[in-house]
Amino acid sequence: MDTRAPTAPELLADLAAAVGAEQLSTGDDDRLRHGTDESWHDPAPPDAVVYPGSTEDVVAVVRACAAHRTPLIPFGAGSSLEGHVAALHGGVCIDMTRMNRILRVSVEDMDATVEAGVTRLQLEAKLRPEGVFYPVDPGADATIGGMIATGASGTTTVRYGGTRENVLALRAVTADGRVITTGTRARKSSAGYDLTHLLIGSEGTLGVVTEATLRLRPTPEAMSAAVCAFPTLDAAVDCVIAVSQYGIAVARIELLDEASMDAVERRFELGYAIAPTLFLEFHGSDAEVREQAAAVGELAEEHGSAGFTWTTDESERRRLWDARHRAYEAGLALRAGARIFTADACVPISRLAETIKLTRRDIDEAGILAPILGHVGDGNFHVMFVLEPGDEEGLEVVKRLNDRLVERAIAAEGTCTGEHGVGYGKSGYLVAERGREAVDAMRAVKAALDPEGLLNPGKVLPDP
Amino acid sequence: MDTRAPTAPELLADLAAAVGAEQLSTGDDDRLRHGTDESWHDPAPPDAVVYPGSTEDVVAVVRACAAHRTPLIPFGAGSSLEGHVAALHGGVCIDMTRMNRILRVSVEDMDATVEAGVTRLQLEAKLRPEGVFYPVDPGADATIGGMIATGASGTTTVRYGGTRENVLALRAVTADGRVITTGTRARKSSAGYDLTHLLIGSEGTLGVVTEATLRLRPTPEAMSAAVCAFPTLDAAVDCVIAVSQYGIAVARIELLDEASMDAVERRFELGYAIAPTLFLEFHGSDAEVREQAAAVGELAEEHGSAGFTWTTDESERRRLWDARHRAYEAGLALRAGARIFTADACVPISRLAETIKLTRRDIDEAGILAPILGHVGDGNFHVMFVLEPGDEEGLEVVKRLNDRLVERAIAAEGTCTGEHGVGYGKSGYLVAERGREAVDAMRAVKAALDPEGLLNPGKVLPDP
Repeated sequence: MDTRAPTAPELLADLAAAVGAEQLSTGDDDRLRHGTDESWHDPAPPDAVVYPGSTEDVVAVVRACAAHRTPLIPFGAGSSLEGHVAALHGGVCIDMTRMNRILRVSVEDMDATVEAGVTRLQLEAKLRPEGVFYPVDPGADATIGGMIATGASGTTTVRYGGTRENVLALRAVTADGRVITTGTRARKSSAGYDLTHLLIGSEGTLGVVTEATLRLRPTPEAMSAAVCAFPTLDAAVDCVIAVSQYGIAVARIELLDEASMDAVERRFELGYAIAPTLFLEFHGSDAEVREQAAAVGELAEEHGSAGFTWTTDESERRRLWDARHRAYEAGLALRAGARIFTADACVPISRLAETIKLTRRDIDEAGILAPILGHVGDGNFHVMFVLEPGDEEGLEVVKRLNDRLVERAIAAEGTCTGEHGVGYGKSGYLVAERGREAVDAMRAVKAALDPEGLLNPGKVLPDP
Repeated sequence: MDTRAPTAPELLADLAAAVGAEQLSTGDDDRLRHGTDESWHDPAPPDAVVYPGSTEDVVAVVRACAAHRTPLIPFGAGSSLEGHVAALHGGVCIDMTRMNRILRVSVEDMDATVEAGVTRLQLEAKLRPEGVFYPVDPGADATIGGMIATGASGTTTVRYGGTRENVLALRAVTADGRVITTGTRARKSSAGYDLTHLLIGSEGTLGVVTEATLRLRPTPEAMSAAVCAFPTLDAAVDCVIAVSQYGIAVARIELLDEASMDAVERRFELGYAIAPTLFLEFHGSDAEVREQAAAVGELAEEHGSAGFTWTTDESERRRLWDARHRAYEAGLALRAGARIFTADACVPISRLAETIKLTRRDIDEAGILAPILGHVGDGNFHVMFVLEPGDEEGLEVVKRLNDRLVERAIAAEGTCTGEHGVGYGKSGYLVAERGREAVDAMRAVKAALDPEGLLNPGKVLPDP
């Protein structure tokens, strides 16, 4: 994309004709909102926003944009964190939120088909009475389409897998305006190239996902929660490794470091120790969750945990997990008007404690406030760098710290992003992580499926 | 591929120079063996076989073949079933079995890196003393590279996932002789396009896999087995649906239909009833496997099972599962000198009983011997059509029955292959299953990564 022509009036007319004038917006507020994510990245508004109501609408929009050689940026809830929705080269934002129908749910087959604009909590509300759930929980109330685009995962991935493990098939519109179906409702298939996984995590650069068939799970008969503090970060991580080696199927296992617990206690005064702490959740039958909790409790004690608090009571469970759920809010509250720069990396768990400790040393040397927490069962961790508004110098320091963190993760045989994706914020790390040859293969795939480079240009792949 | 030139003497000289003359073979026996799989498909021998010892050797072989525009067919154990290894357009078979080193195992991180020629049982023997295992079990002692190429799965997939869920990263040689690394050792990543999954199931048509990093699991503390017969196929399948809805994490749940049990009893006289039967395995702690077995036992009884035999004793467990493990042998024994045509399809489980019953009706009407069995927890089933040697008329009947079976599976929102792959035996079904548009997208990917069409030509994608 070397052209940055303003979107042509003829295109706007074509879009209005395609989806209806009331589903097209060029207002400043709407454009700004659609060029903005929840990160520190500068907004980059599109020239127009369209709101398709069907796959056929999406086809019409893609064809109109292709005819005018105009970029197209898919948009879900705008909750991404690496500039995924920024209209770097202008163009048209395609807001998928009107496509929010849950098309079918089968409890027998444990699957559902939804439109891309359905949100996580909307789906949860629909599924709960049926005794099933969709197990991918990235925290934000993202759209399912957005979660597919970024390859989202989260706190429950350690037990149920992330987006990659829970999507059976996609319906998507290709750059030339054709509709493809990438799979079936069969639980597994060896038929042809895996276009489903090719689209997952492709961030709208290979096609516009319009529908998804998802794998569901039965709501567990029982859930319990536990919290335990450890004398050191090493002890906490070693305990997690032991839990994994014993094959204890924890549903969630989250680490908050000392700085995170300090932020939480300052904000909410829950009475937890200021120490590296694990938050756990167990799913299963009554007997299973009791057995799992007892086994983890023993391992925690062996690893020096002073106390292991656990409960099967629902409100108590929520109270125990409150600190984890509100850690971001606690980080924000550390400084009045603060904003947060969230880092995301993932390493083999044997390298996790060392990676976090070196990162902590860098942070402390730089004198930055930055709680660290993570989906420790997967080796995935986040740093919440707390910045004062307008602190450009601090932002530069944080960017350098983030660079070091990513370099360190890659050196530890890990990845620059465990779950937030590449957007344009992390495309610069891709060659360092995967090598020139693999990135060239990705470029070949992109060129094959989007030869004009109109789908979310400037994202995922670094400029050549 | 419209050219079928015999492999040039110059190429053979280049190959001998690249990997050593002793690692190159043009003998008739060797060529025939490498053009033959375990299916009913006619053998198609390559012109030569090379035995690389390293990724660098593979690069040299790929480059030599590219320079001479000669097809290249990767070969593992030769245990595939849809003509994957047939040299349809001649060329060079690249036998990966010398690349059989297990490069590293980490029990802390629950992962291992192996060369593509390592076999499943070789890996199992190496991992067992470490208290871990690789959970994909397709039955055959396939190579890991072959299992990746076909996207293999099997009896344990219902609990642990198949190849797609258990490979973290691949090393592969592209058609132009470059080495790509498709992932890291991190448990998850959202960095760039998912080349790992693009290669899994691509049957050597997009690159030659040389190394894989695999996810491991801890050996369960306890295992138990159970067998239960049902009055009808519907009752057996309904019981499996109930097991799934209760979230009971069975490690294996296999269905043998009446004809399968009849074949087994004729052969081995194990004393089982001639009725639709489920074979189950449970993994977990002692308490977990007892609880799981008790829960499934209750469900089986509710669904009309006359008796539920279960055990935690190791030799008794093996005895119980004997019928399942030897079902193929029992099928072969139904006719002296028989050969078996194995069908493979996968449907949503709510459609499984109906699909099997209609298939059974067709089979009985045609008067063919054909036990049916399946990985019922995934909705995946196989028909073992028993044919007399040289019965060409019977083979034509079976092909028509197989067509009908596949049509029916696709109509039931399922797939023409749950786990055996496409090869050239099933490429004709791909458009019916996925649609012209999706197959065109696959073609675009193939053209991007193998523009000369030299990697295993004639496989996966149907002739245009």
